[in-house]
Amino acid sequence: MADNLSEVPVENGRDPRDDVQGPVTIAYIAESAGVSIPTVSKVLNGRSGVSDGTRARIEELINRYGYRKPSGSRNNTVELVFRELESMRAAEIIRGVGRVARRNRMGVMVSELGLHDSPGRTLSEVMDRRPHCVVSVARLPEAERDQLSGKGIPFVVFDPATELPDDVPFVGTTNWRGGRSATRHLIELGHRRIAMIGGPKDMPCLRARLAGHGSALEGAGLPVDPSLIIHSPLTRADGCAAARRLLTRPDRPTAVFAANDLQALGVYKAARELALRIPDDVSVVGFGDLPVVAWADPPMTTVHQPLTEMAMAATELALALGRGEEPAQVGLEIATTLTVRSSTAPPAE
Amino acid sequence: MADNLSEVPVENGRDPRDDVQGPVTIAYIAESAGVSIPTVSKVLNGRSGVSDGTRARIEELINRYGYRKPSGSRNNTVELVFRELESMRAAEIIRGVGRVARRNRMGVMVSELGLHDSPGRTLSEVMDRRPHCVVSVARLPEAERDQLSGKGIPFVVFDPATELPDDVPFVGTTNWRGGRSATRHLIELGHRRIAMIGGPKDMPCLRARLAGHGSALEGAGLPVDPSLIIHSPLTRADGCAAARRLLTRPDRPTAVFAANDLQALGVYKAARELALRIPDDVSVVGFGDLPVVAWADPPMTTVHQPLTEMAMAATELALALGRGEEPAQVGLEIATTLTVRSSTAPPAE
Repeated sequence: MADNLSEVPVENGRDPRDDVQGPVTIAYIAESAGVSIPTVSKVLNGRSGVSDGTRARIEELINRYGYRKPSGSRNNTVELVFRELESMRAAEIIRGVGRVARRNRMGVMVSELGLHDSPGRTLSEVMDRRPHCVVSVARLPEAERDQLSGKGIPFVVFDPATELPDDVPFVGTTNWRGGRSATRHLIELGHRRIAMIGGPKDMPCLRARLAGHGSALEGAGLPVDPSLIIHSPLTRADGCAAARRLLTRPDRPTAVFAANDLQALGVYKAARELALRIPDDVSVVGFGDLPVVAWADPPMTTVHQPLTEMAMAATELALALGRGEEPAQVGLEIATTLTVRSSTAPPAE
Repeated sequence: MADNLSEVPVENGRDPRDDVQGPVTIAYIAESAGVSIPTVSKVLNGRSGVSDGTRARIEELINRYGYRKPSGSRNNTVELVFRELESMRAAEIIRGVGRVARRNRMGVMVSELGLHDSPGRTLSEVMDRRPHCVVSVARLPEAERDQLSGKGIPFVVFDPATELPDDVPFVGTTNWRGGRSATRHLIELGHRRIAMIGGPKDMPCLRARLAGHGSALEGAGLPVDPSLIIHSPLTRADGCAAARRLLTRPDRPTAVFAANDLQALGVYKAARELALRIPDDVSVVGFGDLPVVAWADPPMTTVHQPLTEMAMAATELALALGRGEEPAQVGLEIATTLTVRSSTAPPAE
C-alpha cells in the first residue's frame, strides 16, 4: 500500500463513517450552506474567491459536521480518463502518468469515456473505484467536476481544450509561445508572406497559437494579412483543403504554419498535388511533434509539445492534491520547444 | 463489484486462509509433488500433458491440503502489461481491453514494464495488486509466467513474439494467412518478381509471414528466389536500407512486400530517393495497418492486423480463465484482412 495512506482502504467506495455518523459529504455541506460544491471545495482547500461571510458559514458547518476529506478511504490508484483514446498521443500520455505513479507506488487505471456513449456512467464507475486522484484528458465539463469534488476526489485537467475557471487544476503547454516560436523561425529564415492554418475558433489553446503567430509578425514589423489566415478543423483532410486555397493564390505565401501536425501533413499533400516542393517552394511548420512527423518526407519542422512531461506534471499535481497538500499553483503550462527538421528553408526568391 | 465474484475481496493481496490454514499455494503443491508450477496448473485446469502417475500424485496433494483457487481474493481489475508502450499500437490495444473489461464491470490497470528497467519489480507490483487476470503485451518469459501461475493469477499473452508452450494462453493474428494474402494480391495484379523484406528470423510471427509469402508464390507456380528475400529489423530505417539494395538491382523486383508497416514506409523513402514512383514503378504492401499508413503518399495497401479485436478476445479469454472456467481453446489467432489502398497496381511492363 502507499506510504501516505495510513487508513485501511474500504470496499465498494463506501466509507464506514457513512453508517455510524451523520452526513459528512462535501455535497451535504454545500446544500446546507446554500452554495455550490466548488465553493465548499475552495474553503476546504484554503483557496480564494469566496466572500468572508460565505466562508465563515461553510467553516461553521464543516466544524459542526466534522467533515474530513475522505482521502483515507481511497485506493492507491491514479485514474487516467480519456474522452477518446487518441492513437497518436495516448502512449506518451500514459507513459508520463505511469512513470510518476509508479514512483509513488500507485497503479494507473485507464478509461475511455467514449464520444457517443454515455460518459456519465463511466465517470460513475471511475468514482466508485475511489481513486486517489484523476487525471482527465477528457473535457470534464462543470457538472462532472462538481461530481468529483462532491466525492472528495481531486482531479487535474490535462491539456485543456476549453476555458476553465481559475480554481480548476490543469496542466497544459505554452501554446502562445509555441506559435510565436514557429513564426519567428520562419521570419528568421527570411519569409515575409507567412500563412497560418488556424484551428477551430472556440478552442482557447488554438486561439493562443494563432495569437503567438500574430505576435511574431508584429514583433518583426510585418503586417498581419487576414486573408493569409484560414480557420479549419484539426484534420489532415481539412489542412489539405486549406493549403490548396493558400497555395493556388497568385501571391502564394512562401511558408505555412499549421495549428497542428495533422493539418501540416495535409499541407504536404496539397503541395505534392500542386507539384510544389517542400521546403524549396514552400516551408511548412506543424505543431505537436507527433511520432509520425519525423517520418514525413521531408521530416517536419514542428513545435514540440512535451506530452510525457506534461503528463508527469499533471500526475505530480493530482497526487499532491490527493495527499491533501496545497500546491503553490494549480495551473501550469509546460514549455514547448521548436524541433527544426527539413521542411523549412529560406524562401526561393 | 463484479457479479461473478461472490467472495469479499481481501486487502494487500493476502488471503485470510493463509493465517488459518496450512500452505495452500500452487507453488507449495508443486514443490511437494516435485513438479513444476505449470504442471500443477495443468492438473487444476483439467488439461492434458501430464502423466497419469504425476496427475494422481498432484490430485492427492490438492485433496490433502484443500487447495482452492484464490480467485475470490482478487480485485475486479484487468492488468494490461506492456514491455514498452508502443506509440503506434497502444491506443487500439487499450481500447479493446477496455471495451470488454467495462462490459464485465472491470477496470483496466495499465503498466509499462520498461525495456531497461527491472521488469521483475513491476511484475511484483502487478501481482501485489491481486488482479482478476493479466493481459500481457510484453514477452512474459517462463519465469514470470510461473510467478503468475504460482499466485493463481491467470494471464493471456497478446500477439506473442516468441515461441510459447502449448498450454500458455495467447491471442495472436493469422500471420501466415496475412503474408499469403499480401503476396497473392500482388500475383493477381500480374507481378512475378516479388521481393520480401522479412523480419528478424527468431520471431515466429515473422517467420509465419514469410512462409505465407512463399506459399503464395508456390501456389501460383512461381519460383522462390532467395536473393529477393532480405531479413532486417522492423524499423523504417532498416526497411529503407533493404529496399535500396532490392531496388538498385539490374533485375529490379516490380513489387515489395514488407513484414511490417514501418519497413514498408522505409520502402517508400528508398523509392523516392531512387526517383521510383509507387505504384507505377514498384508496388508496396505492408503488414499491420497502423493508423499512419492511410496518410502515406500514396495511401498504403497493407495487411490489417485487428488489434482492437485481438485485445477484446484476449480479455474475454483472460476473464474466463479468471472466473475459473475452462475455455474450449486457450490459444487463438484472429484473422487478418487485406486493406487495398493505392500503393499496389499492375506492373509497368
